[in-house]
Amino acid sequence: MRLLLAIPLALAVIPVPRLDDVPGQSRPGPIFEGAALVRPEGYHAWPIVGASLGLSYAETPQGSGPGSFHRVYVNPSSYEAFGRTGTFPDGTIFVLELYAAHEKAAPAKAGYFEGPRVGLEASVKDRRRFPSGWGYFGFENGARATATAFPEERCHSCHLAHAARDSVFVQFYPTLRDR
Amino acid sequence: MRLLLAIPLALAVIPVPRLDDVPGQSRPGPIFEGAALVRPEGYHAWPIVGASLGLSYAETPQGSGPGSFHRVYVNPSSYEAFGRTGTFPDGTIFVLELYAAHEKAAPAKAGYFEGPRVGLEASVKDRRRFPSGWGYFGFENGARATATAFPEERCHSCHLAHAARDSVFVQFYPTLRDR
Repeated sequence: MRLLLAIPLALAVIPVPRLDDVPGQSRPGPIFEGAALVRPEGYHAWPIVGASLGLSYAETPQGSGPGSFHRVYVNPSSYEAFGRTGTFPDGTIFVLELYAAHEKAAPAKAGYFEGPRVGLEASVKDRRRFPSGWGYFGFENGARATATAFPEERCHSCHLAHAARDSVFVQFYPTLRDR
Repeated sequence: MRLLLAIPLALAVIPVPRLDDVPGQSRPGPIFEGAALVRPEGYHAWPIVGASLGLSYAETPQGSGPGSFHRVYVNPSSYEAFGRTGTFPDGTIFVLELYAAHEKAAPAKAGYFEGPRVGLEASVKDRRRFPSGWGYFGFENGARATATAFPEERCHSCHLAHAARDSVFVQFYPTLRDR
């Protein structure tokens, strides 16, 4: 009888795969070491919310090229929560990858595709950590294992002023904009 | 004792969430009705393998604009299998979404982001259905609920000649190219 009682207890601790438990994604959301965000991993399996080319906030053009591709990913459970509630929960992490724009490799005769990666950044919503609700981080294209948040005025003031929803540029991201 | 034996059997049929069982993704891979592929759904939660702008295979430029953004998604279990084996299993489905390129919405001063969606296509690997191994499908930007495969010469001959691996343009897709 004691054995029979023990079996339901054992069942209760069988790990059930979570939405975020996808291969290669050992860290399903933001991981902090003190004030530093650990470089995100496994996000290639996450949904992207938008892609863009050469978006620049500078008043003056930056060279004559097309600029870089941006890919913006979001952790799966926050993607799901946004679809259900229209808001981003604490623990949301967006990952921004930048890729050089390469062009005209056969059979393409025109246009741009993603060459080597040239940047890796992230933003995290955590209202306990960040007065504005969001922290922004740069990983020097993956060279940094951890990063502390940029000063508020470097990123958040513009996000707050121009981003369509909760400091996120939903207006540029069809996957969120059209939900 | 019979009860004790029954419990392991019951455990064996507890449904364990599969990799493809993510919210909004009721169809985790290609679904056929006869020879017709059912319009894929839920793929916004799938990994993308690449994004590009204005890639064109036409010898002559198509107008003066930047062309369209392409996003290419792959079903999660085939993404995982490719990472493990370097090949695409039967049942692999790539979804291609095309988005109009919009530009210069505040706060951006330059560059292009994804405007409205303007196309929805798919390719499926199934060596029993398709002599070449792959079928290619167009859904008229989602207006078609099902689609039959294009003739071989329309898509596959070029994929076969130019795509880097197994008729897939891995060379344009960093998520696969760099694995």
